[in-house]
Amino acid sequence: RISWISDIIVVVSPENIETMKTIIEKYGHKRVTVVEGGITRHRSIFNGLKVFAENDFSSHLLQKPEVVIIHDAVRPFFEEDIVSKVVMAAKEHGAAGAIRPLVSTVIASAADGCLDHSLERAKYRASEMPQAFLFDIIYEAYQQCTDYDLDYGTECLHLALKYCKTNAKLVEGTADLWKVTYKRDLYAAESIIKENLSQEVCVITNGKETVAQVGFLLPESLKGQIKVEVISKSLSKDDSCLQNIISGQCYNFVCVNDKRCAIQETQELVDMLEKSNIPLLCPVVLISVHLDTSESNSFSIGMEDLTMIKKFARETKKKNILVYGLLIQLK
Amino acid sequence: RISWISDIIVVVSPENIETMKTIIEKYGHKRVTVVEGGITRHRSIFNGLKVFAENDFSSHLLQKPEVVIIHDAVRPFFEEDIVSKVVMAAKEHGAAGAIRPLVSTVIASAADGCLDHSLERAKYRASEMPQAFLFDIIYEAYQQCTDYDLDYGTECLHLALKYCKTNAKLVEGTADLWKVTYKRDLYAAESIIKENLSQEVCVITNGKETVAQVGFLLPESLKGQIKVEVISKSLSKDDSCLQNIISGQCYNFVCVNDKRCAIQETQELVDMLEKSNIPLLCPVVLISVHLDTSESNSFSIGMEDLTMIKKFARETKKKNILVYGLLIQLK
Repeated sequence: RISWISDIIVVVSPENIETMKTIIEKYGHKRVTVVEGGITRHRSIFNGLKVFAENDFSSHLLQKPEVVIIHDAVRPFFEEDIVSKVVMAAKEHGAAGAIRPLVSTVIASAADGCLDHSLERAKYRASEMPQAFLFDIIYEAYQQCTDYDLDYGTECLHLALKYCKTNAKLVEGTADLWKVTYKRDLYAAESIIKENLSQEVCVITNGKETVAQVGFLLPESLKGQIKVEVISKSLSKDDSCLQNIISGQCYNFVCVNDKRCAIQETQELVDMLEKSNIPLLCPVVLISVHLDTSESNSFSIGMEDLTMIKKFARETKKKNILVYGLLIQLK
Repeated sequence: RISWISDIIVVVSPENIETMKTIIEKYGHKRVTVVEGGITRHRSIFNGLKVFAENDFSSHLLQKPEVVIIHDAVRPFFEEDIVSKVVMAAKEHGAAGAIRPLVSTVIASAADGCLDHSLERAKYRASEMPQAFLFDIIYEAYQQCTDYDLDYGTECLHLALKYCKTNAKLVEGTADLWKVTYKRDLYAAESIIKENLSQEVCVITNGKETVAQVGFLLPESLKGQIKVEVISKSLSKDDSCLQNIISGQCYNFVCVNDKRCAIQETQELVDMLEKSNIPLLCPVVLISVHLDTSESNSFSIGMEDLTMIKKFARETKKKNILVYGLLIQLK
């Protein structure tokens, strides 16, 4: 995503290396080198840094960068802005890291399990990621540090200070830098992803009068809550407007038509989505609305139609495109 | 919920006192006294303690307890076990509080915004709630402490140590003691509540053959994922088995029947739920399944039936009972 990052080193435990390589290939990630991790945090980071410095460590020595960013995979949400701020501060100061205010007071316990003293909360900060360093500084620090540091240490900024006399610049980060640690954090992460995916919906209608009317009223009632794009013509594969919406990472589509079972039009949209690779990352939701404008007083849809829609939806689900059918009787 | 707690003092900002009183009345909370908070955490807690000690502060002086528990409303999830442990430790040591391991390293910054030093993470803990104190100790501490403490302090254990030389016992708490602080924490809290609500489902069927069969197959396929209670007879208001399930805090019901629109039976269940006060706390979900066993090859349900179900569901929604209708064609 961030184009000015030249290489990405992913440090992975030995048993997960194959899984990670599969993920990188499946999602077409570029610029990535996978490296085997160590048994502690610091030993893993050190392994990652060696790729740029030690010939015998990697099959192809990567070009040594001026600045290296260190990040945790358990912090999946961050803006380019904080990465850029930390990198610029590291260029100037040699080291830099994101910080956040403390949520709870920090205390020290005595040997008997009782309170020894508490820290004044306002004077301390939680050290978060990303952190950035001039490569030569952090690599020097790791080369100098002791086995005790490598086995029990938790803070890269501490190593830069202790072994290279570099006082890291501290950069105030945003709340989304938090560490996904507990089960509740998975819930929170899931909700944040869902919230981001549901920022925009694209409503597609064909040109017929009743349908166009619904295609007008629906966006009107939705637009207070969500960004709505409207396309009011028949789909065609070279529709550049729709192409733009898809490549703009829209994950929600509503197709309104007046046919009982318009699989063909839906199929065309599914084809476009599949080509775009958008559904690879997150599921796309496609609601196919069928307006029944007949005068009859009861819903009536044949079993073959239902079976066909269900079968179609089952197929598209494998491609991470979730198709839902909705039949509305218009009076 | 915890019967050995004699009084609950809720300290609320002046502008929210009326809202809080409405909530207490609506949900029938007992043992609760509402007290006006101060402009800082410590001033609010001090106000809460005064209810037990100062005649002129409250209209009815509550009996002074041996031990007082201090808790944050932003920590809605905790087990009775941790409360009990903290109280027992306070009885013995004079003060006690829940702690958790630190998730991030804590650092101190210098005046220039650069790293001064980092703390060794293993030696420190996050101080969480609940905390408990011998009443005389914590009240004495609040009476002795300075305005600076009252305005800038964040830690009750610190006051007990500083002013009463009481080293609080630290008790390892569970992860659910975390503080709901950011928007993501609301997502997490919502998911935890939902998870707890969906632990059990009650399937109700009448005695007819086809219906009973579905009422047997559904629990069979569900029981690997969720606790299922089955009642396979017609509902009656004095059905003690169903009463027990409702008072056991079951929030999910599936009623299976073979009538097109069995509002009457559903109504009886809704009445029972309403009387139980269960829907006051959390929404109850009630899925009314209608099996269509006719030989016809297409679904057919009249508009009047649909309108009636929708109208009924709209009414029950006001009572926090969410009714969904589901029509299944059996061949």
